[in-house]
Amino acid sequence: MAVTSANDADSVLNVIDTFSDLSHRYQQVRCQSECLVEPLSEADAQLQSMADVSPSKWHLAHTTWFFEAFVLNKFIANYASFNSSYNYLFNSYYNGIGEQYPRQQRGLISRPSLAEVIQYRHAIDDQVTHLLQKQSDNEELVQVIELGLQHEQQHQELLLTDIKHCLFHNPVFPAYQILSKPTVHQASSSHWLSIHGGLVDLGHQGAGFSYDNERPAHRVYVEDFQLASCLVTNGDYLSFIESGGYRNPDYWLADGWAWLQTTDASQPLYWLQREGEWFEFTLFGLLSLDKHQPVIHINYFEANAYAHWSGMRLPTEYEWELACRQHGIEPVVDPISVHPSTQQSCLSQAFGTAWQWTSSPYSAYPGFKPFAGAAGEYNGKFMSNQWVLRGSSCVTPEAHGRISYRNFFYPHQSWQFSGIRLAK
Amino acid sequence: MAVTSANDADSVLNVIDTFSDLSHRYQQVRCQSECLVEPLSEADAQLQSMADVSPSKWHLAHTTWFFEAFVLNKFIANYASFNSSYNYLFNSYYNGIGEQYPRQQRGLISRPSLAEVIQYRHAIDDQVTHLLQKQSDNEELVQVIELGLQHEQQHQELLLTDIKHCLFHNPVFPAYQILSKPTVHQASSSHWLSIHGGLVDLGHQGAGFSYDNERPAHRVYVEDFQLASCLVTNGDYLSFIESGGYRNPDYWLADGWAWLQTTDASQPLYWLQREGEWFEFTLFGLLSLDKHQPVIHINYFEANAYAHWSGMRLPTEYEWELACRQHGIEPVVDPISVHPSTQQSCLSQAFGTAWQWTSSPYSAYPGFKPFAGAAGEYNGKFMSNQWVLRGSSCVTPEAHGRISYRNFFYPHQSWQFSGIRLAK
Amino acid sequence: MAVTSANDADSVLNVIDTFSDLSHRYQQVRCQSECLVEPLSEADAQLQSMADVSPSKWHLAHTTWFFEAFVLNKFIANYASFNSSYNYLFNSYYNGIGEQYPRQQRGLISRPSLAEVIQYRHAIDDQVTHLLQKQSDNEELVQVIELGLQHEQQHQELLLTDIKHCLFHNPVFPAYQILSKPTVHQASSSHWLSIHGGLVDLGHQGAGFSYDNERPAHRVYVEDFQLASCLVTNGDYLSFIESGGYRNPDYWLADGWAWLQTTDASQPLYWLQREGEWFEFTLFGLLSLDKHQPVIHINYFEANAYAHWSGMRLPTEYEWELACRQHGIEPVVDPISVHPSTQQSCLSQAFGTAWQWTSSPYSAYPGFKPFAGAAGEYNGKFMSNQWVLRGSSCVTPEAHGRISYRNFFYPHQSWQFSGIRLAK
Amino acid sequence: MAVTSANDADSVLNVIDTFSDLSHRYQQVRCQSECLVEPLSEADAQLQSMADVSPSKWHLAHTTWFFEAFVLNKFIANYASFNSSYNYLFNSYYNGIGEQYPRQQRGLISRPSLAEVIQYRHAIDDQVTHLLQKQSDNEELVQVIELGLQHEQQHQELLLTDIKHCLFHNPVFPAYQILSKPTVHQASSSHWLSIHGGLVDLGHQGAGFSYDNERPAHRVYVEDFQLASCLVTNGDYLSFIESGGYRNPDYWLADGWAWLQTTDASQPLYWLQREGEWFEFTLFGLLSLDKHQPVIHINYFEANAYAHWSGMRLPTEYEWELACRQHGIEPVVDPISVHPSTQQSCLSQAFGTAWQWTSSPYSAYPGFKPFAGAAGEYNGKFMSNQWVLRGSSCVTPEAHGRISYRNFFYPHQSWQFSGIRLAK
Repeated sequence: MAVTSANDADSVLNVIDTFSDLSHRYQQVRCQSECLVEPLSEADAQLQSMADVSPSKWHLAHTTWFFEAFVLNKFIANYASFNSSYNYLFNSYYNGIGEQYPRQQRGLISRPSLAEVIQYRHAIDDQVTHLLQKQSDNEELVQVIELGLQHEQQHQELLLTDIKHCLFHNPVFPAYQILSKPTVHQASSSHWLSIHGGLVDLGHQGAGFSYDNERPAHRVYVEDFQLASCLVTNGDYLSFIESGGYRNPDYWLADGWAWLQTTDASQPLYWLQREGEWFEFTLFGLLSLDKHQPVIHINYFEANAYAHWSGMRLPTEYEWELACRQHGIEPVVDPISVHPSTQQSCLSQAFGTAWQWTSSPYSAYPGFKPFAGAAGEYNGKFMSNQWVLRGSSCVTPEAHGRISYRNFFYPHQSWQFSGIRLAK
Repeated sequence: MAVTSANDADSVLNVIDTFSDLSHRYQQVRCQSECLVEPLSEADAQLQSMADVSPSKWHLAHTTWFFEAFVLNKFIANYASFNSSYNYLFNSYYNGIGEQYPRQQRGLISRPSLAEVIQYRHAIDDQVTHLLQKQSDNEELVQVIELGLQHEQQHQELLLTDIKHCLFHNPVFPAYQILSKPTVHQASSSHWLSIHGGLVDLGHQGAGFSYDNERPAHRVYVEDFQLASCLVTNGDYLSFIESGGYRNPDYWLADGWAWLQTTDASQPLYWLQREGEWFEFTLFGLLSLDKHQPVIHINYFEANAYAHWSGMRLPTEYEWELACRQHGIEPVVDPISVHPSTQQSCLSQAFGTAWQWTSSPYSAYPGFKPFAGAAGEYNGKFMSNQWVLRGSSCVTPEAHGRISYRNFFYPHQSWQFSGIRLAK
Repeated sequence: MAVTSANDADSVLNVIDTFSDLSHRYQQVRCQSECLVEPLSEADAQLQSMADVSPSKWHLAHTTWFFEAFVLNKFIANYASFNSSYNYLFNSYYNGIGEQYPRQQRGLISRPSLAEVIQYRHAIDDQVTHLLQKQSDNEELVQVIELGLQHEQQHQELLLTDIKHCLFHNPVFPAYQILSKPTVHQASSSHWLSIHGGLVDLGHQGAGFSYDNERPAHRVYVEDFQLASCLVTNGDYLSFIESGGYRNPDYWLADGWAWLQTTDASQPLYWLQREGEWFEFTLFGLLSLDKHQPVIHINYFEANAYAHWSGMRLPTEYEWELACRQHGIEPVVDPISVHPSTQQSCLSQAFGTAWQWTSSPYSAYPGFKPFAGAAGEYNGKFMSNQWVLRGSSCVTPEAHGRISYRNFFYPHQSWQFSGIRLAK
Repeated sequence: MAVTSANDADSVLNVIDTFSDLSHRYQQVRCQSECLVEPLSEADAQLQSMADVSPSKWHLAHTTWFFEAFVLNKFIANYASFNSSYNYLFNSYYNGIGEQYPRQQRGLISRPSLAEVIQYRHAIDDQVTHLLQKQSDNEELVQVIELGLQHEQQHQELLLTDIKHCLFHNPVFPAYQILSKPTVHQASSSHWLSIHGGLVDLGHQGAGFSYDNERPAHRVYVEDFQLASCLVTNGDYLSFIESGGYRNPDYWLADGWAWLQTTDASQPLYWLQREGEWFEFTLFGLLSLDKHQPVIHINYFEANAYAHWSGMRLPTEYEWELACRQHGIEPVVDPISVHPSTQQSCLSQAFGTAWQWTSSPYSAYPGFKPFAGAAGEYNGKFMSNQWVLRGSSCVTPEAHGRISYRNFFYPHQSWQFSGIRLAK
């Protein structure tokens, strides 16, 4: 399987020039996943609070299966699988590779145990490392391993996102991590960045890894526009709620209003009101709502309704990308933080705080070519009914952000660390 | 309520220069709706086969209510409504105007009777005609009446689409209309139209009516591409089925595959197989499948899967519009036909045969402004999770097609006269 | 098909001794069904407000099909069916006879029209009458015709019950029948009838028609008990509501409480509160709630909760029957009335006002033998999860009541004319 | 709270005459529950495969909460609860005691951990033991503790039943217990026991514990009948399947046939066919189907259909009890076995193999009085839509069987160890 064709200008080899670099990075990324489950008991690692959520243990196993299915099975002749049932249990959605255990029942797999999954990880790691040593000049191998690591980093974010959703269902609101000292966000006032439009080239350019859905870079005509320097805050969003925003159909898309009627939502996913006080469930447990903190766990319907209410709009994904390019805004390299940091300036919130919903439905760029082989199911088949989010969030692993990165979720989904940035 | 602002360049007044023109058109359009229900019994006119479908009687009443709510109620001081319950019964989805009778229960309204609804129509017609006579120079009034007529024409298409779906549920497959003599489509071979891309202006331009969602005309960058001259035929589509197209997840979007699993679909909505022979339910009753006829009643998931299977793709809505403009393809003015005509050449099928799914999710044009007032709910609030279809169909009323027209439906919906045109 | 075996002591022939009697009765019963639909338009006759409800037109056709399938098809050699599609369309649930059109889609059958169904009735009537004339001494034939008439009478009650449910969904609350002059029920005070228990024979005894589920008469041991002379009134039931009865789980069965949570019910099916006043939807349209009228349209969960709240209980079906036998309470012979009459004394309400829920789950009597042939599906296969109701209601046809009659419905169903009688 | 009134003849004190007896039994029963979870990992103990199933950890905690809520909270003045959240988390369905955590989300409670739940058990055990020591002559206390132990034993059975259902969802079919040596059931041929009917006293008689629903003993008239000496075997049931039993509506109740259509069932819950061979999932893992073993995990619909197919019927609960009394069949005192033993003679299978469905809907005995206080919700509120099963099963704890014991489940439920015994 060649993830990109041989004569692809974006060759991964250009940036990962030695075996030791990739091997080192492999160790680091794989190790990081295990660190993330350390605060969890075996029971925690088993939880699945809804079909969209996977148990932490499953994330650990699935990312390992990815290396087994796409690397070992491909590059080792007559490879004998570690455990024949794992191909069924830990394949997520790759029809090209075989049938899958039903997604919504992942929480029912108590065996293999967490310890056995860790053993599985280490056994596969040994073989991948060994293989990399032997075939360090195999460009295809290097590309697939790189894809596997990017994939694992995505699952690191999901792991934290999912465990947050699971712990929220426990009425004692357990903390994933202890908050060492209380912190508060400072007030900051948003201003409008002016961006010059025109005929511009957008999408992934130059060397370096990217997913297939960011390519090819292509020409787009964009009008002049303005983008808010800051993300919308909890306080801003509270004003929307208090002015009756969740009860007025004028602000909502028809599908969004239908979603409201079905779910009876009247506030963001993790917000709670107790005796008139607002709280927010976080991976630190239940905290008082911090009004200056950017609002998170907003779905597209809410983001769109808020924008409508405020008289503004959401940016297109092209506008978002162009604004970053023109204003020199670059991905941050901060390590994962389980909650938005108080240290970021407004502009730097483009990355590392909350994914930002755009008004762009997720679809193919002109000339889009999926990854070859089963990895072609990675992105392309989801190009319907989802929306593009840009930037990255506080739970995105370091060095995983990218200016052309296209995250995507269904408009009703709010369990991601997703927020709002306005345009006009 | 001003549907368009006073200083709007696209003033409707420019094209409808005399009262008599509009008045004549009003009579004609209103009368046409009543003609369409003539073949129906009162029981037929009551049918509602699913929530998306409305009874024919409801269409007759709702389009009348539209004139009452947006014209009489606005332009006649102290207007007393014809029947106070009708505002609740026959408002479709305008939250700005009040609560609505539940959509999925429209089939339960046996009273008012069909005769009473016709009386309602005539009473409102008298008042609208009278009003138009008195205020023929009131630009706002003229605009709203024009909108009401366009609205009614949309419902004429829906009426036929819906009654087809209803009659299909009767195992005796009643015919809406008697087929005078059997007709067959001739084989025609599709070729590729070459279109030059570049920076082009698309969307509704110049004077003449258009919906808010076609505006404003704006600049778009389009690459060179090719568009098939013909629509995909039943025979083409049958090859897809026979090659196992409905059983291979490779061709389908993830949401499309999920739709397949849920519905267990293995062919288009109105196709039936009996003792090895293929039939198609039509408004003429059950007919043998005509292999040279363009395929109709295809949903987006099917259209996309077919395109994928054939190694091609669907055009974007911009490509579709640009192709028509470059090749001088214009809307036809044929009267409604309840089934695709055998008389159309390939190129002319762009209009008057089957709406063509594009790969463009339905969203706002840059600078989109909804109609003012409650009519603002006409289009804008549906801009999520639907796809744009271009062209028109055999059941589209004459003079209702437009090169910039944007029809839109959910990707699972197949009860419209919707077909496939490929691009590459 | 022999409905009862040849040597059955309860031979129908004993009571219907001449052809002319049965022939006369046939005319009368069949005619009565057509009278019941006279106030309905074709659209009314098409309505189906839920799966439990059938359109009036369907009732007319199904009862006719019953004679075609069980009489003509059996007793006429080489019988050619009136219309081959009717066996599919109008078979309700007899698997022994063939596949059935889906029950919940009966409202989608606009054709045959109401007029065609009436023609169907008359054509079958001619043949049945002719057959009866020729074979008036054929005991089996006579029995099956009698069963068909009893069946038709059951559907006459259902027809009114169903049309009431359908009209209720129209927010203008149409009246099926005009109330000539307002009537009010008089207050009456219930007392306790004392019944002596012991070893008694219950179930259908002696000659005369009965359903299979009322047989065989058998010995039962019953303790002494007391039964209320009157049915529970609207006023009584209102006290239950006003004391918070619908909000206190203590009074409800676990399944009943689950039903309450799902449906959010807070009053009987047809009750409405408007500006503090209570109204009841009836076949006369919307009426002020009459506090002295027996409460109707109560489901088993409600009846049981009310009894619990009042410190009493519901009688078993054996107790109910024994009380009637001991106190000489006999079925009334009043014609159908679409609403409880104001003329009945308390004791006579046992029949002709509202079916009375018993605490007896519907199950087989010891030694139960279903009717032979496909008619065996008439009663026996429903012996799970339903409850027995005894007596009859205001919409039960005259001469259809019987002291051993066992009506049965699911505990959540309240669209029948069903009420409450207490025991202790 | 007095479980039984003070002057109740069935006083528990009569049989448990000393503190040391009850105290000893308390230790034993409580300890047994913990033994049952020993083979389970923390992840296993967390599983919840459907709403009817509870996690093993939850069973451990809930049975402990029962003692806290009904004993400590009642008999210790100003009792401070162990953990205030437990009253919400571990209350099953006692509305009288407060709100409950949603049943279907019990699998989402990872904290408290299994270790913390064991600590909770021990802390409560200390207090109950201490209390019992101090108030060993408090009759009410003794009665409630006895109820708590009976309750815990019911949950011991549920724990095994539930964990079997959970492990079945893992495609590797883990074993709860290792089967030491393969065992096979011997063929045995069933004969008919003749039972003399008449006016008999049935229900719980004499001293000794019983649930409220077994009382009062009362007089019933039963006809003579015959009961099969053996339970129906896997081989018998296979004949039913192979003769098309699951495809013929004639054998099924209407609700049972609807259940078949919805679930698409074609064999008992835990049966699997692989390459023509039949297997059965057990707590020993997957075993070859043993044709001479009594069939288990049959629901009421299946039991009823089988009986119908075989030309027999199910016994009423009165018949079942009378047969045991007349033939001197007594509960066995074998310890729990996770699968039907090969050592039991036919007659002794009445207890300790599989609960036997009766044809009796679960309802109140004449004169039924629920336990006083919140314990009144124990049984009475479930008296609708369930069926009585008699006997006991291989996973019923020793000394928990009773000739008057009434188990009850919904007719679609098959995850219990429930089988079939025929009557005629």
